[in-house]
Amino acid sequence: MRRGIVQVVAGLAVVGLLSGTALAQTQPKPEDIKKHETSPGGQYEPSLDVLQQEKTTTPGTKPGVPTLTKAEFEAAKQIYFQRCAGCHGVLRKGATGKPLTTDITKKLGYDYLKAFITYGSPAGMPNWGTSGDLTEEQIDLMARYLLNEPPQPPEFGMKEMQATWKVLVPVDKRPKKQMNDLDLDNLFSVTLRDSGEVALIDGHSKKIVQVLKTGYAVHISRLSASGRYLYTIGRDAKINLIDLWMDPPQTVAEVKIGIEARSVETSKMKGWEDKYAIAGAYWPPQYVIMEGDTLKPLKIVSTRGMTYDTQEYHPEPRVASIVASHYRPEFVVNVKETGHILMVNYEDIKNLTVTDIEAERFLHDGGFDSTGRYFLVAANARNRVAVVDTKEDKLVALIDTQGIKPHPGRGANIKHPKYGPVWVTSHLGDETISLIGTDPEGHPEYAWKVVETLEGQGGGSLFVKTHPNSTNLWVDTPLNPEAEIASSVAVFDVNNLEAGYEVIPIGEWSGIGEGVRRVVQGEYNKDGTEIWFSVWNAKEQESAIVVVDDKTRKLKYVIRDKRLITPTGKFNVYNTRNDIY
Amino acid sequence: MRRGIVQVVAGLAVVGLLSGTALAQTQPKPEDIKKHETSPGGQYEPSLDVLQQEKTTTPGTKPGVPTLTKAEFEAAKQIYFQRCAGCHGVLRKGATGKPLTTDITKKLGYDYLKAFITYGSPAGMPNWGTSGDLTEEQIDLMARYLLNEPPQPPEFGMKEMQATWKVLVPVDKRPKKQMNDLDLDNLFSVTLRDSGEVALIDGHSKKIVQVLKTGYAVHISRLSASGRYLYTIGRDAKINLIDLWMDPPQTVAEVKIGIEARSVETSKMKGWEDKYAIAGAYWPPQYVIMEGDTLKPLKIVSTRGMTYDTQEYHPEPRVASIVASHYRPEFVVNVKETGHILMVNYEDIKNLTVTDIEAERFLHDGGFDSTGRYFLVAANARNRVAVVDTKEDKLVALIDTQGIKPHPGRGANIKHPKYGPVWVTSHLGDETISLIGTDPEGHPEYAWKVVETLEGQGGGSLFVKTHPNSTNLWVDTPLNPEAEIASSVAVFDVNNLEAGYEVIPIGEWSGIGEGVRRVVQGEYNKDGTEIWFSVWNAKEQESAIVVVDDKTRKLKYVIRDKRLITPTGKFNVYNTRNDIY
Repeated sequence: MRRGIVQVVAGLAVVGLLSGTALAQTQPKPEDIKKHETSPGGQYEPSLDVLQQEKTTTPGTKPGVPTLTKAEFEAAKQIYFQRCAGCHGVLRKGATGKPLTTDITKKLGYDYLKAFITYGSPAGMPNWGTSGDLTEEQIDLMARYLLNEPPQPPEFGMKEMQATWKVLVPVDKRPKKQMNDLDLDNLFSVTLRDSGEVALIDGHSKKIVQVLKTGYAVHISRLSASGRYLYTIGRDAKINLIDLWMDPPQTVAEVKIGIEARSVETSKMKGWEDKYAIAGAYWPPQYVIMEGDTLKPLKIVSTRGMTYDTQEYHPEPRVASIVASHYRPEFVVNVKETGHILMVNYEDIKNLTVTDIEAERFLHDGGFDSTGRYFLVAANARNRVAVVDTKEDKLVALIDTQGIKPHPGRGANIKHPKYGPVWVTSHLGDETISLIGTDPEGHPEYAWKVVETLEGQGGGSLFVKTHPNSTNLWVDTPLNPEAEIASSVAVFDVNNLEAGYEVIPIGEWSGIGEGVRRVVQGEYNKDGTEIWFSVWNAKEQESAIVVVDDKTRKLKYVIRDKRLITPTGKFNVYNTRNDIY
Repeated sequence: MRRGIVQVVAGLAVVGLLSGTALAQTQPKPEDIKKHETSPGGQYEPSLDVLQQEKTTTPGTKPGVPTLTKAEFEAAKQIYFQRCAGCHGVLRKGATGKPLTTDITKKLGYDYLKAFITYGSPAGMPNWGTSGDLTEEQIDLMARYLLNEPPQPPEFGMKEMQATWKVLVPVDKRPKKQMNDLDLDNLFSVTLRDSGEVALIDGHSKKIVQVLKTGYAVHISRLSASGRYLYTIGRDAKINLIDLWMDPPQTVAEVKIGIEARSVETSKMKGWEDKYAIAGAYWPPQYVIMEGDTLKPLKIVSTRGMTYDTQEYHPEPRVASIVASHYRPEFVVNVKETGHILMVNYEDIKNLTVTDIEAERFLHDGGFDSTGRYFLVAANARNRVAVVDTKEDKLVALIDTQGIKPHPGRGANIKHPKYGPVWVTSHLGDETISLIGTDPEGHPEYAWKVVETLEGQGGGSLFVKTHPNSTNLWVDTPLNPEAEIASSVAVFDVNNLEAGYEVIPIGEWSGIGEGVRRVVQGEYNKDGTEIWFSVWNAKEQESAIVVVDDKTRKLKYVIRDKRLITPTGKFNVYNTRNDIY
C-alpha cells in the first residue's frame, strides 16, 4: 500500500490551497538537474547579456548580483508573493520551504535556481516551468530576483487598517431576527478559490443560496458563537463579515488586516459570544482584535520576536491558525516560525494578558480533542504535534507523529475500540495516518502518544474527517501525484481499522471528465449523515461538489453549477461553530 | 525664583548619566545659527571636496548623500552610540531627543547639522563643539554620518549572551553565611561612572570597602530580596552579580545582555526571593530573565511592536526601568517608545504570562507609592506620569505633571499635612516639583491628581529624595546651567512646604575647588538620619560624596578618596531592596 513520498506536480492552484504547507523542507536535489558549480564564495556567473549590460551602468549594484529594472522587480515581487512566499516566507527566511536568503541563493547560482524553478523537486517544490505555470522569461526573472536582497513589504498598522475598514450595513440597520428561511445550521460556506468568492450552499436542497465576493483564495470561514455571523479571510488579508440573518445573506463589513493572512476566529466564551473577532497575518507578522459585529480594528499585536528554542530574533514569525478557547475567554494564536502558542485573553483589551507557551517551530493548523479542552497543532516541518491544555494554559506534550509533515486541518476525533478517544492526523509527506490518544483521565497510558498508525492511499493528504454520529474516518489525498489517488478518498471503519480502507472514487462519481479532479476536504452536514467533497479542477475547467451518504458510502448527490469555480474548503455552520470534527 | 528652562551645557558625562533623558524634544532653533536654506526636496549641497570626490567614484552611493570611508563610518558609529543614541535612539527614530532619520536630516542639511552639533540648543541639545567634547573634524564627520541611513546594530540573542556569560564563583563554592563583618544593610553601592566601576562604601565608617570593575557607566545597582546579592548594569549592557557575603564582596557572575542597556531587577515576591534576575536592553529592544544566583540567561523576550496609541510598528521600543512587584510574582517592565507597561509573571518561564498595559509613550523611570501597591512612572517627553495598580495589573491614571519632562528617579513619598500620602517628582525641563496624591482609600478626592506644585531652584533636576523617618524633601539640580544651582540642593520641610526651600551648598561643603561640582542624587542611610550627595566632577578632576545630617541639615562628613572617580548614583542596600524612598 505504501506509495512513497508525495511528488507534487501541482501548479499555482495547489500551492495556493496549501497556503504554505506543501513545499518541502528537504534540501532539493533533483537528479535530472546538474548542480551548477560555484566557487566557494558562491559568486554569480552572469550569462545573460542584459545582466552584463546593466551591471556596469547602474549605480548601487553589487558585484555578482544581477540588476533588475524597476518594472522587472515589481513583476518578480508579485510572482514571488503569489507563488513562493507561502512556503518560503516574505523575507525568504524559510518555513515549510527552504530559506532563500541571498547567502544561499548566491551559492546555488543563477543556473541552478533557474533549473530548479523549472523542474521542481520530488520533495515538494512545484515544477513551475514544465507545468506551464511560469514562462521561461518569468523563470529567468525569478532566478535573477532571488539573487537580490528581498524587499521588505510595508508595515500595515492601524492607520492602514482603518483606511480599508468599511461597515456596509451598520448594526442598527441589520435585521433583529433571521429574515430568510434557511436552515442556517446546515448551511455550507464554500471557498471558490480562484474567483475570490464564497458560495453559500443549502445543506438540504444542495442549491447555491448566494455567491459573495470576498478576498482572494479564502483560507477559512469561521462562525460567530451565535451562528449568525460568518467570517471569511482571503490570502490577501481581506476579511468579510457576512450576516446570515439577512435575506439573502450579505457582507455587512469588511477590513484588510495586512498584506497576507490565513486565519480568523471569533470569541466563543460564555458571555463573550460574537463580541470579538481576531485575525492573524503572515505579513506583517501580527494579529488584530476587532469588534465582532463591525470588524472595527481595536488592537494590533506584533508577533516579531525570538524563536522558542535557540532564542534568536526572527523578523517574520507568521500567524498560522487561531482557535477560540472554550475554557477561558482566550484566543489560541499559533506563531509559525518561532514556535510560540499565544493564549490571548480578551477580557480586557487595554490591559491585554497573553500567556506565551513555548511549543515547537513551524506551527500550522490543528484542532481540539473531543472534549474541547486540549488543542493539538501540527509543527509540520518538525513532524510533530504540540498539545496545549486550554484550561491550564500549559504545554502538555510534543509528539512525534511518525509521519512526514503532519497536516491535520482540524483533525478528526474518533472513539477507538482499544485506545478510547483519539485524535487523527494525516500527512503531506507520506501515507501515514497517526492516531494520538487524548484521554488522560480514562486512558492515561495512551494519552499524548501515537497509539496506532494506519497506511492511507499515499502522501499528499490535507484533511481527515469524521463526525460524532459516524463510524467512518475519511482521508483525502488531493496532492498525490497519481491522478487516481488524487481523485479519490480512502475511508476506514473506526471499529475495524485493521481491515484497511475502502477507496471511494469521488472524482469519477462527479461525472466530470476533464482535469485532475483533485478531491479535497470532506465536510459533514450538521447531522453527520452525509459528507461533502470538493472535486477541484483548474479555473477554466469544471469543478463540482460530491455528496456521499455516510452510512452506505454511496453517492447521494453531485452539485454541478457553473458558479462553482475551484471549490476547496467547505465549512458547515453548525460543525464549524461548535468545533465538531 | 523661576529660572527658566534648563540650558544643558554639559559634556559627555552629563548625557551619560541622563541616559536618554536630557536632550530636548523641542524643535531646536538656536538664534545664533543661520538655518541652512534647502530646496523643498532638502537636497544636500556638498561643500567639501572629499564628498565631491567620493561621490563620483564610489558605487552604491545615492545622489545628495555624502559617502564615508569604512573607517570614518565606524568612528562616527562609535561617537553616535556614546553621545547621541541615548536620546535619539539607535535607529534615530527619536525619543527624548528629536528623530534624526534621513528624511529629516536631509531637509536640515549638512551646514545646519554641523552648526547645531557645535552650538547645541537651549532646549537641551549639548554644545558638543564649543564645549570641546568633539573636534571640528568629528563634528564634520557626524554631520555627514547623519545624512546616511543609520546602520542597524546586530541582534544579541541567546547564543551571544551565553558567549559572554561567566560564573566566576559557582554557587556551591560561595560562603554559606556572611564572611565579612560589614553592616550590609547600611552599605552603599556607588556608581563610578567614567571608570566603569562601583565603589562599595560602609555607611558607618564612610570608608570604601571595595572598588569593583563593572560595565561602563553603571546605570543602577539593585539588591536581591535577601540583601545578599548586588546587581549592577552598565550602559554597555554588562551585568555584574556581586556576592556581599564574601570577604571582601566580589563579582561571582557576569553576563552581557545586549549592546546597550539601563535596567536590572530581581524577583521579590514571597517564595521567589533571589530566584530570578531580569534586565532590559535598549538594543536590541528586549528583556531577559536570568537565574538570580548565576545570571544564566533563561528567556529573552523582544519588545518590538506597536505604539500603544497610533498602533504603528516601532522597530526600537527600548526597555527603560524595571521594578519587581510586591503583590504578584511579576516584574514591571516599562517600554519607552511604544508606551507599554509589561507585567511579566515569572511563575512559569516556559509558559510566560504577560499583561500588557497601554500607558503612555516615552516611559522612563519611576517608583512605588508608600504602600508599594501603585507604581508611578514618568512618560517624560509627554509630561505625564502613568500609574499602575500592581495588585490589579491595570492602569489607574495618566497625570499631567504640570512641569516639563518629569524625572522622578524613583520619586519621594511624603506625608502631606493636607493631602495625605503623596508621591513627588521634579523635572528636567523646569523648576516644577509636583506632588501627586496616592491614597485612593484615605484621600480619594486627591488620588492621582497633582495636588500641589512647588518651585525648586530651577530646571535640570534629576532626583528628589526623602525617607519615612525624615520630614525633609531634597531636590537636586545637577543639570542646571548655573553653576551655583548645579552645585547645591534645595530642601523643603514637608510640614511647612509653603515656606519654600533652603539652599544647601553641597559643592562648597565638599571642599573641592575645581570643576562644576554637580551635586546629584541624594541617598539616605538605612535609618534615615543622614543623606549622601555625590559631588560629581569630570574624570580628571576630583569628586566627592558629602554626607548631611538630616535633622540639622548640617555637614556631617565628606568622603574624598582618589578612587572616587565621577561618582553618580548611590544605592543604600536596605532602602533599595525595600523600595524605601
